[in-house]
Amino acid sequence: MTDDLSESGIATVGLDRFATTLAEAGADVVDVDWTPPESDAIDALTALASEHGHIEAANRTAFDRLVSADAVWRDVRPAAEAIPGMGERTVLHAGPPVTWDRMCGPQRGAVVGAIVYEGWADTPEAARELAATDAVSLAPCHEHRTVGPMAGIVSPSMPVVVVENDTHGNTAYSTLNEGLGEVLRFGAYGEEVVDHLDWMEATLAPVLADTLAAHGGVDLQLLSARALEMGDEVHNRNVAATSLLVRELAPTMATLEGAGEVLAFLESNDHFFLNLSMAACKVGADAAAEVPWSTVVTAMARNGTDFGIRVSGLGDRWFTTTAPVIDGLYFPEYDAADANPDIGDSSIAETTGVGGFAMAGSPSITQFVGGTPADARRFTREMYEVTVGERPTYTIPGLGFRGTPAGIDLCRVLETGIAPVINTGIAHEDPGVGQIGAGVSRAPMACFVDALKAFRTVYLDEGGPDFADAGPEADR
Amino acid sequence: MTDDLSESGIATVGLDRFATTLAEAGADVVDVDWTPPESDAIDALTALASEHGHIEAANRTAFDRLVSADAVWRDVRPAAEAIPGMGERTVLHAGPPVTWDRMCGPQRGAVVGAIVYEGWADTPEAARELAATDAVSLAPCHEHRTVGPMAGIVSPSMPVVVVENDTHGNTAYSTLNEGLGEVLRFGAYGEEVVDHLDWMEATLAPVLADTLAAHGGVDLQLLSARALEMGDEVHNRNVAATSLLVRELAPTMATLEGAGEVLAFLESNDHFFLNLSMAACKVGADAAAEVPWSTVVTAMARNGTDFGIRVSGLGDRWFTTTAPVIDGLYFPEYDAADANPDIGDSSIAETTGVGGFAMAGSPSITQFVGGTPADARRFTREMYEVTVGERPTYTIPGLGFRGTPAGIDLCRVLETGIAPVINTGIAHEDPGVGQIGAGVSRAPMACFVDALKAFRTVYLDEGGPDFADAGPEADR
Repeated sequence: MTDDLSESGIATVGLDRFATTLAEAGADVVDVDWTPPESDAIDALTALASEHGHIEAANRTAFDRLVSADAVWRDVRPAAEAIPGMGERTVLHAGPPVTWDRMCGPQRGAVVGAIVYEGWADTPEAARELAATDAVSLAPCHEHRTVGPMAGIVSPSMPVVVVENDTHGNTAYSTLNEGLGEVLRFGAYGEEVVDHLDWMEATLAPVLADTLAAHGGVDLQLLSARALEMGDEVHNRNVAATSLLVRELAPTMATLEGAGEVLAFLESNDHFFLNLSMAACKVGADAAAEVPWSTVVTAMARNGTDFGIRVSGLGDRWFTTTAPVIDGLYFPEYDAADANPDIGDSSIAETTGVGGFAMAGSPSITQFVGGTPADARRFTREMYEVTVGERPTYTIPGLGFRGTPAGIDLCRVLETGIAPVINTGIAHEDPGVGQIGAGVSRAPMACFVDALKAFRTVYLDEGGPDFADAGPEADR
Repeated sequence: MTDDLSESGIATVGLDRFATTLAEAGADVVDVDWTPPESDAIDALTALASEHGHIEAANRTAFDRLVSADAVWRDVRPAAEAIPGMGERTVLHAGPPVTWDRMCGPQRGAVVGAIVYEGWADTPEAARELAATDAVSLAPCHEHRTVGPMAGIVSPSMPVVVVENDTHGNTAYSTLNEGLGEVLRFGAYGEEVVDHLDWMEATLAPVLADTLAAHGGVDLQLLSARALEMGDEVHNRNVAATSLLVRELAPTMATLEGAGEVLAFLESNDHFFLNLSMAACKVGADAAAEVPWSTVVTAMARNGTDFGIRVSGLGDRWFTTTAPVIDGLYFPEYDAADANPDIGDSSIAETTGVGGFAMAGSPSITQFVGGTPADARRFTREMYEVTVGERPTYTIPGLGFRGTPAGIDLCRVLETGIAPVINTGIAHEDPGVGQIGAGVSRAPMACFVDALKAFRTVYLDEGGPDFADAGPEADR
């Protein structure tokens, strides 16, 4: 562990090393470069919190907003129509902001595919040239109430799911999951990929939209809760949620033209629910954002180059560091040398108390990400140490129906040295090769250190943030 | 426990008493009336087994047949057409043989409903009179390669699922699950019940049959294996299996007339897979039957009056005793005084290594049958003590993907005093009231004692059974 850190800056922890505990690993890092500054900062904040109760009360507010958020899937519409303020030639991407010149291979490949799909360029070569100019605006999904898995590319014509939080009045969006094989989200941009995107636009999206119009909204929180009881962690395992969803929609869908094709696609895709799960998580995270004094983390996201977090009390600012390479289980013929650094917005799952945080309820996920069911239970138990509370409706039967740990508290992460766990697929570093493995990573501590420094500056030196009146409706 | 046994013959064990262990409970019974005879018998058999290896080898053969059996759902057809040798005016019922005069309330109610449904009588009163005469033949489902939940009534016009074991060439049958509410299997026989049976015959059955014809057979073992990883134990919890099944069939079904209605019914019925699971278990149990020298149990079944078992090396003989009342969780307003004694063929699940035997993988089932996930794990662990082996494809993620315990060995049950566990719904003793609770029961030891006595007689005194050439094709 220490070797990895000192030699390459890789901040992930392999399952085989888990027994040495992350606290130890954190302690190593602390010794190198960051203990003194945020130890001071924590002390200062802790003193303030105990004096005024600001932080604890604010975190409770953020947590309550997170877990009381609804997530009702109401529609499927083109991104440009659905997402407020998305420009005509805008391409959204996963993770914190990144420019074309710093973008990783798979994300560049996906941008190229999106430009060809939109018809802004005729060939991948022309698309690549265009992407490097101002003619295409790049922006993070997260800054447009949106989340996308892996490369996370959303272009204006792509259909997105519309997920509404009726409790707090905000909305979130995500693309439709493409299935496995050659897909845009792993940076593939060939003819098949674009043809499949066309099919999704022409057939999948309208059938789903018409089904929802006739059926009414789908309660994604309820589906997630049921799926969590059935071995999904609704990040990398979504087979139960996808099956429950199909069973709920099939009676209505069966009466529509194209139903057979769409049901066959849903039958083939165990991950279909992933993007819906992500939007359900995002709508909750956004509801918890911008609570003054709250140290609750409201986003963890990666673009394959940088890893970034946002913190409720610090609004829409990103705190970023180099995205780590995942020390996971690689498919035959591949190893970590082939891997793209951590990528995707899907860590919104862990940000809101599912995914790696709910692994105890998903022993089968270890067949995908490595480790044993006992490891999975340890990951969840550990996450209770860095979170504000337990989700009341997301329970883990194997832990006596205890709620999943949710609401990552920046201060507790730094106090304990326990970095949030994220389970994830691993993309090849070259566009279009696709998934080459899966594993369990850790959010890099450097983001949390920087966020705490900023928190101290904003609250102790500058008298507080400037978003107090923004409310949950603001784009973030 | 001792009081219950001596005063009322109730041989079940409540979850709250589980910690005292069944071995103790068994020991109490032993002291009363049966230790010496089968202790002698076990000694004699053990000596023979160790001398010749007969029993161990035979049990291994029976176990291998059980776990290597296929279970492919190929068709839905009227019982009279599908089930070989089912007479024109025959009504099959759950459990060991029983005459009308000894039949329990719910089973009588279901017979009355079946007679009205068949049109053999116009009113329930007339049906009741007819049932008491020779004009209607009653026979156990189990003796016609069939299994039915609760009352387990099968009449000639009822559609049954046809499940084939291609490995050994035998077939099993079960009715289609009616869903919840007023249903025949709990002894209801009103107009609604018969109307629903008519709908099942006219709409549900043909849509399913046409779907299977176009889709091909459904691998019920694969579905069960996947569902066991998703918190089902495929006896009282079938939500994952039902959802996976719908997802598999929906693309084909969607193109058929009536699909919307059928998919809506499947959406409403989390237990739809139960009857398929039972037929899949039955086809395996039948494949394991009639192995000379095998002490493996091939049926445990209840008719609400008697509890009976069959043993591989003893062919189609039943060993019966009074059916116990379940000490379970009752719905509000009900208690054990309202309960019908244990009823249904669904304990074919436990007979073949799922249901109560797989409870460790189904922590959520405890919300239905009582107890905690820790109790569920204990039940499964205990069943490893009385079984021949572990099912290779039915695994329990929470126990490190260990196979479920399967192949109940009569000798080990008697040696250890551990009675097989069965989780089950509880019917009201009056016809038509329906389910009033659920719980975990134990197979009564008296059946095992009698079977062992018969085993000794057949193999040590009479030189072996007379079915040696019957093969798995025989009705049993």
